[in-house]
Amino acid sequence: MQKAVIIVAGGSGQRMGAPGPKQFIEIAGKPILMHTLEAFYRWDAGIEIILVLPESQKTTWENLKKTYSFNLPHKIAFGGKERFHSVKNGLGLLSPEVRLVGIHDGVRPFPSKETITACFEKAAEYGAAIPVINVNDSLRKAEGENSVAVNRDAYKLVQTPQCFKKEILAKAYEQQYQAHFTDDASVVEALGYSIQLTEGNPENIKITRPVDLAIAEALMDKTAF
Amino acid sequence: MQKAVIIVAGGSGQRMGAPGPKQFIEIAGKPILMHTLEAFYRWDAGIEIILVLPESQKTTWENLKKTYSFNLPHKIAFGGKERFHSVKNGLGLLSPEVRLVGIHDGVRPFPSKETITACFEKAAEYGAAIPVINVNDSLRKAEGENSVAVNRDAYKLVQTPQCFKKEILAKAYEQQYQAHFTDDASVVEALGYSIQLTEGNPENIKITRPVDLAIAEALMDKTAF
Repeated sequence: MQKAVIIVAGGSGQRMGAPGPKQFIEIAGKPILMHTLEAFYRWDAGIEIILVLPESQKTTWENLKKTYSFNLPHKIAFGGKERFHSVKNGLGLLSPEVRLVGIHDGVRPFPSKETITACFEKAAEYGAAIPVINVNDSLRKAEGENSVAVNRDAYKLVQTPQCFKKEILAKAYEQQYQAHFTDDASVVEALGYSIQLTEGNPENIKITRPVDLAIAEALMDKTAF
Repeated sequence: MQKAVIIVAGGSGQRMGAPGPKQFIEIAGKPILMHTLEAFYRWDAGIEIILVLPESQKTTWENLKKTYSFNLPHKIAFGGKERFHSVKNGLGLLSPEVRLVGIHDGVRPFPSKETITACFEKAAEYGAAIPVINVNDSLRKAEGENSVAVNRDAYKLVQTPQCFKKEILAKAYEQQYQAHFTDDASVVEALGYSIQLTEGNPENIKITRPVDLAIAEALMDKTAF
């Protein structure tokens, strides 16, 4: 089945304390976002890649592509007010023959081949699948002024790509935006679909804090990507 | 007030796939556990350090101390069946003048000075404090066969040191062991004390998976510890 990935790169770099958007920060010789696109192209050179960028970053991206001689084929959609609207814009550019769609964070350059494969395979079978990993630390939940220990074994940390049959995803994104739509699974879930969990890889971190840059450099060095 | 830290090093290295205990794996030129002891000694050279080790690892530790010319003062207690029993053994070695006690994972070599200070200060004021950080990924909770998205903003990831007034901790550890005692806060909480949260540092990771070793090496290089 023809597959596509919508890579959402909307960050401003605020939490990073960086002067520019965090997806353009260089690690191991090129911007994070290029590593992310390459991860999917390396997985399957036939995948359709749609990159969602804030309109204000289009020129920067075009210039970076020239600077780094980056020429992986991809379409560009513009970001919207919330992630929800950005993904919706990306959906509008899908080729008609696409049957399965992954949605992925632009600042997650390290999804493993196994993570991507497992997610698309389970989405093909069940309609909706997302990669998760175990919680490695103890976990507490706020309750009013206090907090209580909860059983971390009942919880999973969610990564991307989040993968879906196209018709389910398209239908889900016809809903009105709601504030609790924090990821694509929650949008699809609101339609009543259940979400299958697949095994993610611990390297597949979201680069959001300054410390994540040091970690990302290390992962780039040590991992066979 | 006189302070002590009980450093619990009970790991077997199973999840790491390493041949020996993970706390003895070398990063940046010496075993992880030595970095951990140094973090507290650097914070306050007057702190009493009690290291809890499985009895079977005592000779290895003595040999490693010679190999690396490691001579930070510390007492050694032996580990018990569960973490609970290990901590209890450590408590038995506290000097009478100690008033505040931190309990720390042996495989967390990167608590910042700010993290340690904030935790001990709040424990001095309120009796019990633990460092926490935000959850960076989406979070799901298992519900029967399925899972549901939960609001990650209501949750915190718990680190160590977990700090307490000695009399509270001693009383808490007189309780019978229960399976839900997953960290020291949960033991103290079972007595009815409320736990204060302080800000942890994201570098303060628990080294348990192979990927954490690469991350730890990077943090060692890039962070001013």
